[in-house]
Amino acid sequence: MLNRNEVKYIQNLYQKKFRTSENCFVVEGPKLVDELLNSSWTIKKLYATADWEPTTHSPTIQIIEQHELERISALETPNQVLAIVEMKDQQGFSIDKNEWVLVLNGIQDPGNLGTIIRNADWFGVKKIVADTVTADCYNSKVVQSTMGSIFRVNILYTDLASFLKKHAHLPIFGALLDGKDIRTVQAKGGLLIIGNESKGILPDIQPYITDPVTIIRKGAAESLNAGVATGILLSHLTQ
Amino acid sequence: MLNRNEVKYIQNLYQKKFRTSENCFVVEGPKLVDELLNSSWTIKKLYATADWEPTTHSPTIQIIEQHELERISALETPNQVLAIVEMKDQQGFSIDKNEWVLVLNGIQDPGNLGTIIRNADWFGVKKIVADTVTADCYNSKVVQSTMGSIFRVNILYTDLASFLKKHAHLPIFGALLDGKDIRTVQAKGGLLIIGNESKGILPDIQPYITDPVTIIRKGAAESLNAGVATGILLSHLTQ
Repeated sequence: MLNRNEVKYIQNLYQKKFRTSENCFVVEGPKLVDELLNSSWTIKKLYATADWEPTTHSPTIQIIEQHELERISALETPNQVLAIVEMKDQQGFSIDKNEWVLVLNGIQDPGNLGTIIRNADWFGVKKIVADTVTADCYNSKVVQSTMGSIFRVNILYTDLASFLKKHAHLPIFGALLDGKDIRTVQAKGGLLIIGNESKGILPDIQPYITDPVTIIRKGAAESLNAGVATGILLSHLTQ
Repeated sequence: MLNRNEVKYIQNLYQKKFRTSENCFVVEGPKLVDELLNSSWTIKKLYATADWEPTTHSPTIQIIEQHELERISALETPNQVLAIVEMKDQQGFSIDKNEWVLVLNGIQDPGNLGTIIRNADWFGVKKIVADTVTADCYNSKVVQSTMGSIFRVNILYTDLASFLKKHAHLPIFGALLDGKDIRTVQAKGGLLIIGNESKGILPDIQPYITDPVTIIRKGAAESLNAGVATGILLSHLTQ
């Protein structure tokens, strides 16, 4: 049985301000919660309907009714289990010379951000740096669309210009119209800037790019989706 | 002034069955309608609010009020103009030896289908073949998410097994777990099968694949988004 305060608390976690002050966020569904249980993230609370069967050892579960799950879920089709998870702090976030790091310059769509995190995880990229106008990675839509990759990628929100200035000794790649054909680029690591969905990499960030790259267009589409472009760039750069 | 029958007619066009019997579909917003006006597609009717300024010559426009546009639009934020467009028939759809053709095996999410059409258009792929469980390309969400690419790519819905049998003389590529590293594949053209979002390429279609390919994973994500995978495969195959 859920009390009113608990319901309200969880519903409030769907707002960024409340998530930040509470330092926790919501993860839903058997698949994601299983990945969570196999990760190093700290679960603060676990609510599940009686039919949920975790595939691994899980902390104490509060059994709730389906109608209660529906009240606290952000999903269209609530699915057996909901966890409240502690955010990880990003102190000690540092970059090695030969690793790839994604740098997000205003990715606004939660679905795109989720796809980008999933791409990073596929290609072995373990760190993402995002400016503060990029969607919140603890937003429920982002968390769900990462399909669990959010538990394996460290994401730091910070002021991009200062961050790039501090890392000017590293190669900084960015997709621009007149860059080098991405299929011919050879590099062992560096920062890869991904621009905003409609504006691309913003004018105040462009000067930091040391290695402009381009995905050559053969047809007539005006642009590629930001998640698709990230996947293509990573597939060539991380060979 | 829109009459009740017109409103009802347009609202019905958001259902596949009605679209098919009427052989037309809806396109919205200044950007897409501009692309439409510059294409060979036939516009049957054009509704716009008084503030719409087409960038090119347009057929007779019926001026409507904002509240009327809101009644007939499928967008969350209706945007100045809505066109009713005639579908193109795909008679004479044939495949040349040295071209790339996408083959869709159960792409169910309209957003993914839109992204795939946009990818095809970016990489110069002019033909897509889809099975009948793939989302309808004239679905409003698909049309809008193609960003206009739908006007430049021919899409044929058909029985895939018969289609693949008939084209068995062409190389048939498909992403499977144990295929050849996509970065090392050299080919001038062929069919590229894209599988369903959760099940991949279905067992009854897999035997038609002559050239299994793989996007090598370096990290831990279970899969890539179908639109992202299509973009990556095309970026390597169409070099």
